[in-house]
Amino acid sequence: MNPLEELTESFSRLPGIGKKSAARIAQHILQNDRNQALVLARQISEIHERIKKCSVCGGYTENDPCPICSDALRDKSLLCVVEQPQDIQIIESFHEYTGFYHVLGGVIAPLEGIGPDKLSFPGLLKKVQSGEVKEVIIATNPTVEGDTTALYTQRLLSPLGIRVSRLASGLPVGGDLEYADKLTLSRSFRGRTTF
Amino acid sequence: MNPLEELTESFSRLPGIGKKSAARIAQHILQNDRNQALVLARQISEIHERIKKCSVCGGYTENDPCPICSDALRDKSLLCVVEQPQDIQIIESFHEYTGFYHVLGGVIAPLEGIGPDKLSFPGLLKKVQSGEVKEVIIATNPTVEGDTTALYTQRLLSPLGIRVSRLASGLPVGGDLEYADKLTLSRSFRGRTTF
Repeated sequence: MNPLEELTESFSRLPGIGKKSAARIAQHILQNDRNQALVLARQISEIHERIKKCSVCGGYTENDPCPICSDALRDKSLLCVVEQPQDIQIIESFHEYTGFYHVLGGVIAPLEGIGPDKLSFPGLLKKVQSGEVKEVIIATNPTVEGDTTALYTQRLLSPLGIRVSRLASGLPVGGDLEYADKLTLSRSFRGRTTF
Repeated sequence: MNPLEELTESFSRLPGIGKKSAARIAQHILQNDRNQALVLARQISEIHERIKKCSVCGGYTENDPCPICSDALRDKSLLCVVEQPQDIQIIESFHEYTGFYHVLGGVIAPLEGIGPDKLSFPGLLKKVQSGEVKEVIIATNPTVEGDTTALYTQRLLSPLGIRVSRLASGLPVGGDLEYADKLTLSRSFRGRTTF
């Protein structure tokens, strides 16, 4: 393999990049400005050093604790439980939630050998037991594993007497009944709201 | 912007990668083995140094002249004219053509200010005038610019008394008349072959 083929091979191992896209990207890099390539190379090589996981929430951050966990103005009574660090950025992007986060680090998936012991439930319990949290919002994905994990979390926290909620599941805004799958439709029925 | 956002931004500038894919790729790199990231970073940073253009054909190569141009077993009577260096790999991939190549470096595109003077026609003429070439196969893309460039090449070479051919244009194998666009269909009629 020549260097161009090696680079193509490496790109094709990244998620969502097929063989042809990888070749196109490698050629793009070769045909374009060398400095831009060096910037990208530097960013990739430094990412593991520069981005750490926050010791409080488990999200990605340059400084520990992260800007969210060290923000005194946020609402200490709310704690949002997410699967992965990147979920925090997604929720932050719509500027509505003002509480704190807790990253589980995955979902309960018995078929893949991931039990509750592999996830950060002890840390979650400790945070809730500290007494300041009044509501835990479970924001795991609306998948079988995400639902299982949500249910587990709810049962774990229910003896503590706080409110435990789950993100609403139903029809996507702008969607059409005709194109909704049956499961989503049945869920939007069960979860129907009054005006 | 934090390093993760910077990396996402850089990836989203590559061809065929949108914002969400770029974020997924950046997170993938962060979550996976650091050594793999360092390999990718090295490959990107070295690509401009390690891959050059062959001084004979204009294709990508580590050594000049490239393995194709220095292959004494190839057919000196055939010369295939392509738009870009990467077209050589595509044609080589089906192991049928055994002649040499000539990269034009683009196509004639008056609207973008690219006239024949910006392309490597002098080198092409010189190769053909050397006397060994018996057929020039024009393999520019079947686009308006590719066709214009093919016509220009054909007119340039016709006084030299060699055969000048063009890749067949028509229905793709496995395709369906129903899904063919009118232009392709009309071309496949004009270019119809006898059994």
